[in-house]
Amino acid sequence: MDPVARVDSKMPSHTNGFHVPDAVKDNGKYDPTFTKRVIEAIGPKTSPRFREIMTSLIQHVHDFARETELTVDEWAAGVNLINWAGQMSTDRRNEGQLLCDVIGLESLVDEITYKKAAEADDVATQSAILGPFFRLGTPQMKMGSNISQDTPADAQPVYMFGRVVDAKTQKPVCDAEIDVWEASTNGLYEQQDPDQKEFNLRGKFKTGPDGEYSFYCIRPTPYPVPDDGPAGQVLQMLDRHPYRPAHIHLIVLREGYKPVTTQIFDAESKYLEDDSVFAVKDSLVVTFVPREGDPQAKLELNYDIALKPNA
Amino acid sequence: MDPVARVDSKMPSHTNGFHVPDAVKDNGKYDPTFTKRVIEAIGPKTSPRFREIMTSLIQHVHDFARETELTVDEWAAGVNLINWAGQMSTDRRNEGQLLCDVIGLESLVDEITYKKAAEADDVATQSAILGPFFRLGTPQMKMGSNISQDTPADAQPVYMFGRVVDAKTQKPVCDAEIDVWEASTNGLYEQQDPDQKEFNLRGKFKTGPDGEYSFYCIRPTPYPVPDDGPAGQVLQMLDRHPYRPAHIHLIVLREGYKPVTTQIFDAESKYLEDDSVFAVKDSLVVTFVPREGDPQAKLELNYDIALKPNA
Repeated sequence: MDPVARVDSKMPSHTNGFHVPDAVKDNGKYDPTFTKRVIEAIGPKTSPRFREIMTSLIQHVHDFARETELTVDEWAAGVNLINWAGQMSTDRRNEGQLLCDVIGLESLVDEITYKKAAEADDVATQSAILGPFFRLGTPQMKMGSNISQDTPADAQPVYMFGRVVDAKTQKPVCDAEIDVWEASTNGLYEQQDPDQKEFNLRGKFKTGPDGEYSFYCIRPTPYPVPDDGPAGQVLQMLDRHPYRPAHIHLIVLREGYKPVTTQIFDAESKYLEDDSVFAVKDSLVVTFVPREGDPQAKLELNYDIALKPNA
Repeated sequence: MDPVARVDSKMPSHTNGFHVPDAVKDNGKYDPTFTKRVIEAIGPKTSPRFREIMTSLIQHVHDFARETELTVDEWAAGVNLINWAGQMSTDRRNEGQLLCDVIGLESLVDEITYKKAAEADDVATQSAILGPFFRLGTPQMKMGSNISQDTPADAQPVYMFGRVVDAKTQKPVCDAEIDVWEASTNGLYEQQDPDQKEFNLRGKFKTGPDGEYSFYCIRPTPYPVPDDGPAGQVLQMLDRHPYRPAHIHLIVLREGYKPVTTQIFDAESKYLEDDSVFAVKDSLVVTFVPREGDPQAKLELNYDIALKPNA
């Protein structure tokens, strides 16, 4: 009948050797055994990785609540925000993801995943967050196609081309699949915009033996992340703007190589220094240059993609 | 164009003097300026309290991700879980709240809120979590009414009575409003159960000058929290059962006094030591005793409620 005493007697906890500093764990004001009890409640059949994740999550969430002396009303406001995010999410919108993005979490787990996969000896293309607007099922297109099905008058057409190479040998990689997507000049991806055609500004390409790829697209423009939901409310309460710098999304896949999910950023764009989702990396900033003698595009971008072989 | 350098130059950060140990903040492997940059992005017009909360939240969420080396796939699974919680939530079910409950967060913010409100010199009734099954609009009833509209055959009727008193003076408090609710013997609250009548096992009572209250109810029974959603999935993955010990919920409100939200637990119930939402406190454990000469109930519970005056 005294749960505290009971659980205390079966310490030590399952913290798996994490460094959890005592000063944060217990500020002395609140039941010092509570977090331990919650962690100790994890049963023996839990997978080791899930135990590791939940032990750290419970410790940090509790420390956060104690540090800020979070009240029931403040917590309930947070619960409402999270429920609202789920209710807004559909196959065309992932608001839970966007909430994470505006506090930098997707960018951080991207860095962690990339670093975990990286080996020291060769430089592959850096990763960047997937973002909430990726869609499965983008149609395969022929090299040199235009992914812009209905180019708006204010768009600047661009010819983008380059090679997919092996990060170790620098040799071309054939059969690499490149999935590309970008927003239109009104700041909307096609699934957000009833006026754009299905899969507009999306395309999938497969390299041949030369590793080369090419397509026409439009120069990307900055746009705000959707701010009519909880992520927008958080941004507003944080006195931050919702804008992202101009970028093109890429996923590059090839059997035998580590997949790359990335974004490339226009060097001349606004918001490179204050991206609302913290995704910019210097190595991903690219420069569009004038293109000569092509009636389809006055700008071009030469961008090579280096894939790291699986170990 | 180098956001890291730019933000670094305008340190120090807005951590508001929280103790954020360096060993956790930066394990040396990942960009040591990243979390600072996200926190520094908070604008000057943010309310001081929201800045305090979000600074701590961002720091802890990032530390959690770095400590566990959370991958993109693991993070995405968490986002799906949170979106799912929102999608399941309705006016009859709050799954975001339940997710917090199973990791002890509601119980912790309840403790924090209660401690913040507490003064040292008088002992008010302790609080416990609201839980996800409270409903507004419970009808007012006369003292001595039965809140069980259709008592199941396996239920044990109980006469519950007592006084609402001032925690300082021990004098009766009149015009105190008592809102009570409990699950039926099948483990379901009326809004979860199409077979129960609207507002079954709920009642609202107002004390007179004697501060006394009384009603008939049923002896509560243990039940599992709903485990068909993300909270249930987390419990299962944590190798934990979903059961709560038998309890009756109470909210007691009176102008001039601090509100009390609490639960009282049957001393003979299972799960007192391993409540799935960590809400049991020793002072809230009560004993049902035999009742003589009452055809309506063979058990009774005498329970006084002490309200703390507003400062």
